[in-house]
Amino acid sequence: MPDNRSFASDNNAPVHEAVFQAMLDANQGDVIAYGDDPFTAEAEQKFKEHFGHDVRVFFVFNGTGANVSALSHLTHPWQAIITAETAHIENDECGAPEKFTGCKLHILPAPDGKIRVEQIKPLLHSVGFQHHAQPRVISITQATEMGTVYTPQEISDIARFAHQNNMLLHMDGARIANAAASLNVSLKEMVTDTGVDVLSFGGTKNGILLGEAVVFLKKELAKDFEYVRKQSMQLASKMRYISAQFNALFTDGLWLKNARHANRMAQLLAEKVKEIPRVQITQEVQINGVFAIVPRETIDKLRQKYFFYMWNETRSEVRWMTSFVTTEKDIEDFVEALKEAI
Amino acid sequence: MPDNRSFASDNNAPVHEAVFQAMLDANQGDVIAYGDDPFTAEAEQKFKEHFGHDVRVFFVFNGTGANVSALSHLTHPWQAIITAETAHIENDECGAPEKFTGCKLHILPAPDGKIRVEQIKPLLHSVGFQHHAQPRVISITQATEMGTVYTPQEISDIARFAHQNNMLLHMDGARIANAAASLNVSLKEMVTDTGVDVLSFGGTKNGILLGEAVVFLKKELAKDFEYVRKQSMQLASKMRYISAQFNALFTDGLWLKNARHANRMAQLLAEKVKEIPRVQITQEVQINGVFAIVPRETIDKLRQKYFFYMWNETRSEVRWMTSFVTTEKDIEDFVEALKEAI
Amino acid sequence: MPDNRSFASDNNAPVHEAVFQAMLDANQGDVIAYGDDPFTAEAEQKFKEHFGHDVRVFFVFNGTGANVSALSHLTHPWQAIITAETAHIENDECGAPEKFTGCKLHILPAPDGKIRVEQIKPLLHSVGFQHHAQPRVISITQATEMGTVYTPQEISDIARFAHQNNMLLHMDGARIANAAASLNVSLKEMVTDTGVDVLSFGGTKNGILLGEAVVFLKKELAKDFEYVRKQSMQLASKMRYISAQFNALFTDGLWLKNARHANRMAQLLAEKVKEIPRVQITQEVQINGVFAIVPRETIDKLRQKYFFYMWNETRSEVRWMTSFVTTEKDIEDFVEALKEAI
Amino acid sequence: MPDNRSFASDNNAPVHEAVFQAMLDANQGDVIAYGDDPFTAEAEQKFKEHFGHDVRVFFVFNGTGANVSALSHLTHPWQAIITAETAHIENDECGAPEKFTGCKLHILPAPDGKIRVEQIKPLLHSVGFQHHAQPRVISITQATEMGTVYTPQEISDIARFAHQNNMLLHMDGARIANAAASLNVSLKEMVTDTGVDVLSFGGTKNGILLGEAVVFLKKELAKDFEYVRKQSMQLASKMRYISAQFNALFTDGLWLKNARHANRMAQLLAEKVKEIPRVQITQEVQINGVFAIVPRETIDKLRQKYFFYMWNETRSEVRWMTSFVTTEKDIEDFVEALKEAI
Repeated sequence: MPDNRSFASDNNAPVHEAVFQAMLDANQGDVIAYGDDPFTAEAEQKFKEHFGHDVRVFFVFNGTGANVSALSHLTHPWQAIITAETAHIENDECGAPEKFTGCKLHILPAPDGKIRVEQIKPLLHSVGFQHHAQPRVISITQATEMGTVYTPQEISDIARFAHQNNMLLHMDGARIANAAASLNVSLKEMVTDTGVDVLSFGGTKNGILLGEAVVFLKKELAKDFEYVRKQSMQLASKMRYISAQFNALFTDGLWLKNARHANRMAQLLAEKVKEIPRVQITQEVQINGVFAIVPRETIDKLRQKYFFYMWNETRSEVRWMTSFVTTEKDIEDFVEALKEAI
Repeated sequence: MPDNRSFASDNNAPVHEAVFQAMLDANQGDVIAYGDDPFTAEAEQKFKEHFGHDVRVFFVFNGTGANVSALSHLTHPWQAIITAETAHIENDECGAPEKFTGCKLHILPAPDGKIRVEQIKPLLHSVGFQHHAQPRVISITQATEMGTVYTPQEISDIARFAHQNNMLLHMDGARIANAAASLNVSLKEMVTDTGVDVLSFGGTKNGILLGEAVVFLKKELAKDFEYVRKQSMQLASKMRYISAQFNALFTDGLWLKNARHANRMAQLLAEKVKEIPRVQITQEVQINGVFAIVPRETIDKLRQKYFFYMWNETRSEVRWMTSFVTTEKDIEDFVEALKEAI
Repeated sequence: MPDNRSFASDNNAPVHEAVFQAMLDANQGDVIAYGDDPFTAEAEQKFKEHFGHDVRVFFVFNGTGANVSALSHLTHPWQAIITAETAHIENDECGAPEKFTGCKLHILPAPDGKIRVEQIKPLLHSVGFQHHAQPRVISITQATEMGTVYTPQEISDIARFAHQNNMLLHMDGARIANAAASLNVSLKEMVTDTGVDVLSFGGTKNGILLGEAVVFLKKELAKDFEYVRKQSMQLASKMRYISAQFNALFTDGLWLKNARHANRMAQLLAEKVKEIPRVQITQEVQINGVFAIVPRETIDKLRQKYFFYMWNETRSEVRWMTSFVTTEKDIEDFVEALKEAI
Repeated sequence: MPDNRSFASDNNAPVHEAVFQAMLDANQGDVIAYGDDPFTAEAEQKFKEHFGHDVRVFFVFNGTGANVSALSHLTHPWQAIITAETAHIENDECGAPEKFTGCKLHILPAPDGKIRVEQIKPLLHSVGFQHHAQPRVISITQATEMGTVYTPQEISDIARFAHQNNMLLHMDGARIANAAASLNVSLKEMVTDTGVDVLSFGGTKNGILLGEAVVFLKKELAKDFEYVRKQSMQLASKMRYISAQFNALFTDGLWLKNARHANRMAQLLAEKVKEIPRVQITQEVQINGVFAIVPRETIDKLRQKYFFYMWNETRSEVRWMTSFVTTEKDIEDFVEALKEAI
């Protein structure tokens, strides 16, 4: 990799020092494994403070683990999961959702990463017909994989529709902090109050080393999930070190500071890029990612200096991600390099 | 938990400081996610130094993840996995092997945690009979869950039998360092040279924070395993931090020092316990665990001060584990408490 | 195959002529596929007459399909199914139960094919421990694979224990007619009244061409099973022809006549065999099978004339099955051949 | 159901009398179960005559069983199956393909039921990327669910593309006889010679009672499929009765006669319907189905007399199927009723 700030993904970033310090602080003596420890109790408490006292939290290893174990818990294999064509569960989990849940994924077009109730309605024709997988879970990503954000109203519209039709709403929150920062609302307003049933709460892209959380917003849904987590190969023995990271994230609003900073850097990048001819931003920049169509030869040149992903080969569209460590200077240097390449 | 050294499990122990330091050293700047980083390259190299240059290594999150992804890669669902009644894959993974591989587990009696070729032979009657799951993998644990160790000769006997009968040999090495320390042989002599096909290499019980490795001793067996790892929800994005821990473990022989120390503490404990009336050690103490039958009321009293597991309710048998941080004083205090309780 | 009566299995027998006639009678004009037809309605009614009005019946293709779809419906993958070492689901379904349910099978020793409550009790230690598959279904076979029969009292003892411990009782009734004939009790007394939750009702071994039924003795357990049946690949399009066979079986007590005849032929065989030196009957002959230890060279000679299975190579034990078409002359000829061979 | 010829599906039809007679002829004495019988040997031979001597044939219960067991045999769970949005495996198997194979289904738009190589090419971007399910099987339906037919050239184009890209071609031949009749080519020309790897050969919609066949066109692909069939719950014990039906189908060209007749009836229906105002045929009528847009109130009226399916609620599009028993009078009566209703 070129020796520069990566614009490939927020998980190319290192770990925030406060998160590391929390793990070091937890590294004293023996504690019981598998979560029966004070660090985990504290982390659970912090989640309750942010989401409400009826939530149940289970720590897991990664985003795929969070999504798949949660979806498996909510479904029978003869049911279907409805999601966007851009969703991580559809594109980036190597079929783990199908393999582990046994469910069919119904994929909806989503040019901006978001799905709407109107698109889901026709799938209700399958209800009660034994030849068809039965719709059971709607899974949305907040913020979306396209760098856009559902408003609380949009979320509650989908939640209401789901509940009216015997379905549940799952939220893949790999970048939930960035979404909350973008909307300037609390996690409770955005998730609990809108009617989300289960949330995959992402930490890794927001400054921690490793760890995600499956958050049941309604505690009765959490029943028996400990077995699903274990069978999903997502139960950490030395769990205190995952919990401690979340404790750091929820201390002094670090989760929000990190997310705000990353978002701001993407805004800055977008502003500067807008002025460059032959570069066209393709999605509204609401969180820490910028999608842009760039001439193919420019991309090739720029990638000699910076690592980032081609998003859509056909359209010559790239994705640039910022993170909690991106600096204004990083942006300036990158934009300079981009201008040169063009 | 009582505020004392735990004798419950080696994963109640903290993280070795050198392992922590290696993670901190890796915490500089951005690196590519998912393993395409210099720390992972270095870790792979270290595994080759220990196991031979034809091995392929894949880092995963935990022992269940290592075992299940490896077994899934080696089998079709209509095949069977043969293992000991005491095996972790049979007892402590909440059915993850069956769920993820789809295979039947054939369970063999194993009073000392070990299985023998003579026990496996009758299962060959199933070969070629379409109504029966076809034997494909033999899975042994080294060291065993009963604290015993297979000799290299015993391992190679099983491996030869497996290969002669179109089967493969998997080794669950959650405590492989303790086994190597006990036998005083190299990893290569114990694993590669005996004919093991795939190894789950455990780190968590030997001083690291989190992380295991699936090691293919024959590189052709590793083909396409990257997809299995991903679909098993075992691919870490910030993989450098897992790799860095293994680098620390393989620097200055830390893996062996930790294991030797833990083993020695169990020896010490066993020696002292032997002298106590009404306490009967039930397994040969070859690694860092002591199994003993203790009067029920003694157990209850002792557990008010120390956390450890009842192994067999019916026999009133307990398991006491030591770790790299157990001190001689810890042992002395524990034995004192045991004596008092009796 | 030698041109003689088979003593290998009751599914080597042909189809009873009344069953064939019923299919022919159903072969008039078009009817709606997938079970919405008058023949299926009639068959459902007949099952209600025999088992009680609260039962729900679903026709499937074969015994493995009945067992696996039923067990899958009753379980989550992180739960366990408890059964005898001799059970069909353990031995003769090529791992289909594990593959399709995802569950662990807990296998209990069963020298006479039957399991007892006392054997199941120790498995309750796993309840509530997240590392262990959670016991959920006890599956017994009536009549057993060893030709023995559970008394109604034995069944209700297991059912009561199951229900007291949050478990369900499944009965594999591949030879349920033979069991009812042997006990001289009604199906309702033997199955519904003893507390069985779900039954795999076998037809194929009792004179029909193809078809089994999953019978839910408590209708609330049947909810959504139509989707499980379909996803289990067990939904017949031209279902009228399966239903019609069951209608024939339940007309004029054909099911019971066939079973009684087969049982009587086995009794006759056993009586004659008992007198032969060096042949030792190993199981009580309660239905249509005789298990016997026979000198190896005798077996080899006899198999040149008759097709039957070696049951246990090590013990030189064979299984001889009779069926609704076996005649007294068949038995006499066979015994004659056996005597000659000895 | 109204007491009339059904236009709902070809599986609402009865069983052809020659097929019934073949089963009756097979109903003599005992034969070995599970396919080791002369009727099955004969059926295998007949398949070889039609498809070539290198094929391997396995009889199963139904179309879903044929498709799913075949696809499962050809794939690992981390691979993907590419198919049309109209495919039976996507729409009408209640998620059985995902559940049993573990694979992702990639769905391509197919207004006429057919997919083209150009649509598949972009999916190759996933090859070698560990986050994506790896394309492995292309599954086409011949004839399609929309009543259209791939030409041999179209099939061989897809097969060539598949093989060039390390993929295999599966054909769902639920109505393969109708396709062969429509194209007026032999089964060998249409399937074997075009490069299809595995075929689900449908019998049920063409006059038999129950039974399909998985046909491996290249015998090396069939290795170990017997275990997959068994684990898929698709192995019939009294297999002679399934085999005998295929023997009847392949005697005196019955398979082709039945298909030609059904196709001709659909042609007749289409010709007559074309003349009716406000009814618009939407697909080319190449086999035994007619798709048409009909005013909603007309549909409602007509369904009081005839049973058939609404295909697309939104477009008010219906599907009318003919079968081997449909008569010219049936067509005339139906058209008369349609005219009245309009």
